[in-house]
Amino acid sequence: MAEALLASTFNRPGHAIVDHRTWVFLGDGCLMEGISHEACSLAGTLGLGKLIAIWDDNGISIDGHVEPWFSDDTPKRFEAYGWRVIRDVDGHDPAAVDAALRTAMDDVGKPTLVCCRTVIGHGSPNKAGTHDVHGAALGAAEVAATRAALGWPHAPFEIPAEIRAAWDQRETGAARRRDWSARFEAYRAAHPELAAEFERRGMRHALPADYAPRSAEALAKVVAEAATIASRKASQNAITALLPLLPELLGGSADLTGSNLTDGKTSVPVRRGPEGPGEGGSATSPDPLGGRAPRSGGQGALHGNHVNYGVREFGMSAIMNGLALHGGFIPYGGTFLTFSDYARNAVRMSALMHQGVIYVYTHDSIGLGEDGPTHQPVEHVSSLRLIPNNRVWRPCDAVETFVAWQAAVERRDGPTCLILSRQNLPAQARDAAQVDAIRRGGYVLAGGDAPARVTLLATGSEVGLAMAARAQLAADGIAARVVSMPCCEVFDVQDAAYRAQVLPRDVPVLAIEAGVTNFWRAYTGFDGDVIGIDRFGESAPAPQVYEALGVTAARIVERATALAAKATA
Amino acid sequence: MAEALLASTFNRPGHAIVDHRTWVFLGDGCLMEGISHEACSLAGTLGLGKLIAIWDDNGISIDGHVEPWFSDDTPKRFEAYGWRVIRDVDGHDPAAVDAALRTAMDDVGKPTLVCCRTVIGHGSPNKAGTHDVHGAALGAAEVAATRAALGWPHAPFEIPAEIRAAWDQRETGAARRRDWSARFEAYRAAHPELAAEFERRGMRHALPADYAPRSAEALAKVVAEAATIASRKASQNAITALLPLLPELLGGSADLTGSNLTDGKTSVPVRRGPEGPGEGGSATSPDPLGGRAPRSGGQGALHGNHVNYGVREFGMSAIMNGLALHGGFIPYGGTFLTFSDYARNAVRMSALMHQGVIYVYTHDSIGLGEDGPTHQPVEHVSSLRLIPNNRVWRPCDAVETFVAWQAAVERRDGPTCLILSRQNLPAQARDAAQVDAIRRGGYVLAGGDAPARVTLLATGSEVGLAMAARAQLAADGIAARVVSMPCCEVFDVQDAAYRAQVLPRDVPVLAIEAGVTNFWRAYTGFDGDVIGIDRFGESAPAPQVYEALGVTAARIVERATALAAKATA
Repeated sequence: MAEALLASTFNRPGHAIVDHRTWVFLGDGCLMEGISHEACSLAGTLGLGKLIAIWDDNGISIDGHVEPWFSDDTPKRFEAYGWRVIRDVDGHDPAAVDAALRTAMDDVGKPTLVCCRTVIGHGSPNKAGTHDVHGAALGAAEVAATRAALGWPHAPFEIPAEIRAAWDQRETGAARRRDWSARFEAYRAAHPELAAEFERRGMRHALPADYAPRSAEALAKVVAEAATIASRKASQNAITALLPLLPELLGGSADLTGSNLTDGKTSVPVRRGPEGPGEGGSATSPDPLGGRAPRSGGQGALHGNHVNYGVREFGMSAIMNGLALHGGFIPYGGTFLTFSDYARNAVRMSALMHQGVIYVYTHDSIGLGEDGPTHQPVEHVSSLRLIPNNRVWRPCDAVETFVAWQAAVERRDGPTCLILSRQNLPAQARDAAQVDAIRRGGYVLAGGDAPARVTLLATGSEVGLAMAARAQLAADGIAARVVSMPCCEVFDVQDAAYRAQVLPRDVPVLAIEAGVTNFWRAYTGFDGDVIGIDRFGESAPAPQVYEALGVTAARIVERATALAAKATA
Repeated sequence: MAEALLASTFNRPGHAIVDHRTWVFLGDGCLMEGISHEACSLAGTLGLGKLIAIWDDNGISIDGHVEPWFSDDTPKRFEAYGWRVIRDVDGHDPAAVDAALRTAMDDVGKPTLVCCRTVIGHGSPNKAGTHDVHGAALGAAEVAATRAALGWPHAPFEIPAEIRAAWDQRETGAARRRDWSARFEAYRAAHPELAAEFERRGMRHALPADYAPRSAEALAKVVAEAATIASRKASQNAITALLPLLPELLGGSADLTGSNLTDGKTSVPVRRGPEGPGEGGSATSPDPLGGRAPRSGGQGALHGNHVNYGVREFGMSAIMNGLALHGGFIPYGGTFLTFSDYARNAVRMSALMHQGVIYVYTHDSIGLGEDGPTHQPVEHVSSLRLIPNNRVWRPCDAVETFVAWQAAVERRDGPTCLILSRQNLPAQARDAAQVDAIRRGGYVLAGGDAPARVTLLATGSEVGLAMAARAQLAADGIAARVVSMPCCEVFDVQDAAYRAQVLPRDVPVLAIEAGVTNFWRAYTGFDGDVIGIDRFGESAPAPQVYEALGVTAARIVERATALAAKATA
């Protein structure tokens, strides 16, 4: 997908600078996993003709011969996905494999599955064809027997000269590289701006030089608007603002585009075939120069900048990892927060592989209302925060949402989860220093100018409740400070002085978040308190669910008053 | 699967007391999800002839007409799974649907997919066939137009008498129920013990009357053995001990049977066809009376009590939910802890639906060693604890493992995750009161008889480290208490006096767990400390990874000494 989209964006007649294949090796176990269905079905639909998967069909998985638990007609299954299937290749016959791969390399507008029949542990006289060679070493005796059976007299790590010569592709590779570089120079001569942009996006992976001022300008506009809207809507506005600045943004949704609001004004659905009007929108590549150069018509099999991933949360997330690893894109994709569970391993892999994937998770709490507990995340925000190297932003209004988006696109060495509300969130007032402080992950939103008897620490939709409670507490004669904490991971790495200034240790902390409470004990200690939800939700209009589960301004006032009294006593 | 296995266990010639179908309704979105592949592939392999899925083929998902993101040849895909496919049924023609369902009810030893072409919003003149009717109400005007188009003059909720009469199945249902009851009485007369057992397992869902004493006896044996073994091995021993007591235990693994050790001595792989030797073991039904009655040969399409689920973690977990909801089984299934991410939504659903599913998660930390960070869970134990109504047991030795298994099988209103080590864990010494206290989730393992200057709070494999550190601290003149906390959720609901006795507030707590630290701040407050791992792991032999990541007895001694000094100061 990355290759096809970059090709349609950057290639020009006579200049196919993006033109490569993606090779996949997979075994029986891979074919059992659900993600194989999600990814391969979508690959077929998108007609990814340069995707070639080689199936090591050895009939063995860890539990043994697979027939009792895996009897799919895999070639037929892949034909049902619209793939070309090359059947019955003898995986131990180099000539047969070579012929099959050459056929596979002929792009017919479909991905190709090459079915190679193999024997696991080929050559081992006593263990070939059994799962004993799946995860354990052969052992010295069987290694010796295998050497004898294969007629392999060479010492370990000794590669015979004729094999080394046949396998050595250094010259071939260097020549190909020289050829590509020459072609790229020709491209640069013909299309200097496109070439510079390709180098920036595809090779240096740097943000545009004018990103910073234009992004700051866009933020200033959001601050000035002070809109009371849902943070998912604020996120859509941010996408609309950022798309012209960052043509590498490649959006999408797992069949919830109109709910996640992942499509900005210039989003164009990714579709197959030559440019032109397509189903569900006009299928044209986005202008790679963001309006700074006249359009000149790309070439390629896919066009657009917003992927309808279908109901495939895990597939979407793993594909975004692939797009990020490939380079040339900042992938973002949406689903309901509760469905992040389907894709959790991919989020972990983004973090482990240091990939700057952006997860847009909307409908972030019991605030989604009527869809009920299956759809109401209560543990998910905390749970995503536990993944090392992951950053979770839960903004409280449109301004924090824009800053979260800035942080997400600027973070190119790890993933960001944007946790967004379905319901409207009140705009909060901030001075310039407070707007700047959002980037620090946590900051004093109100009451920073006077001593407080209690700190109300909240995120997202609960910041508005905390602000309402603060007003009531003030009327009751209790000075409270409100700390908005959109991103704990960023706040936690601020210097100790800043953290102590935001959360003074001698003021008791009441944390408020419409989710499980455990996470916040790290910020409250034994002397503070947490208002949250340690149970599943309920199906009802959002205000009623908030009321029923006790996440209200009145309850904040009650618990804050008790904390302040205890601290004074 | 539940029906087929209960039938083979309880039916006898002339007595088909278990004989029912499972009906599934699914739409295009369901067919995009990866779990549809995992579950339907396995259903085909197992030949579940009484499983009938009806596909509402309306070509619409939330993002619109599905062609640009879903173009599978679904009938062909299901034929590749070994399903019977009934194609091209007009879903709006009752006679055509009726004929198709009658065909589907003829059991040919394959699941059946009935493909019903439909128009979403059928009858709505302006919205039929569009995604506008997927998630939003028609609205008053369109409802009126639809009534006119369908010629439906009746008031809302008014059901015309002739339709009510045709749809009213109360008499038919009551007659069928009477018929089944009569047949069950005949069965009871012929097979009184089997009938009583069926009522216990399949209808009352109660543990056997002799479970408690036999289970206690088995625990006493484990205590006496004091084996230093991996907790996954201790778990296998527990399974072997419990299988004869609880024939409703239905095990399995997602292709890691030999690693998860989910197969006990009397485990028999679930296989198709008549009883007799099968691939990978003899395919016989387990004796439903646990050795208390002579075998008399069951009938049914599936036999065995341990499922090779294949590499299908999510499918396995969701199937276990189905088995539990069906009744007659205590399902348990294994995978590596890190792969719990693939199945997280199913664990959540077990908890939300109050189903007593048992998840056997082995290879529970960096202690798995060489497989490296992709396979080393660091956030998973904490993350599973955040799911409401879930219980997570991480036992420190064979005795705690057996008690965890007892708690799991006795808990029939919610899931249990058993978090088990790959590596050996030293047997800990306990008196009878301490063995009893394991059931309370957390208890004083050492140092409860004297005042301590620091409490070492640990789980699983880190309890051994804490015990070693305690010995060193004693040599240094610092009295330390070791609290083993195999299950926080159970400890947290003990009475306040017990909790305060185990974790006295005035003694600083050092928590130790080879995973993310945030969770434990709730037990340490600001004055305590946590030794854990807030990063991904490394690939190396386990002792080296522990050393590299600083989870060692020496580090516990160092941090505990600092805590004790600070508390004294």
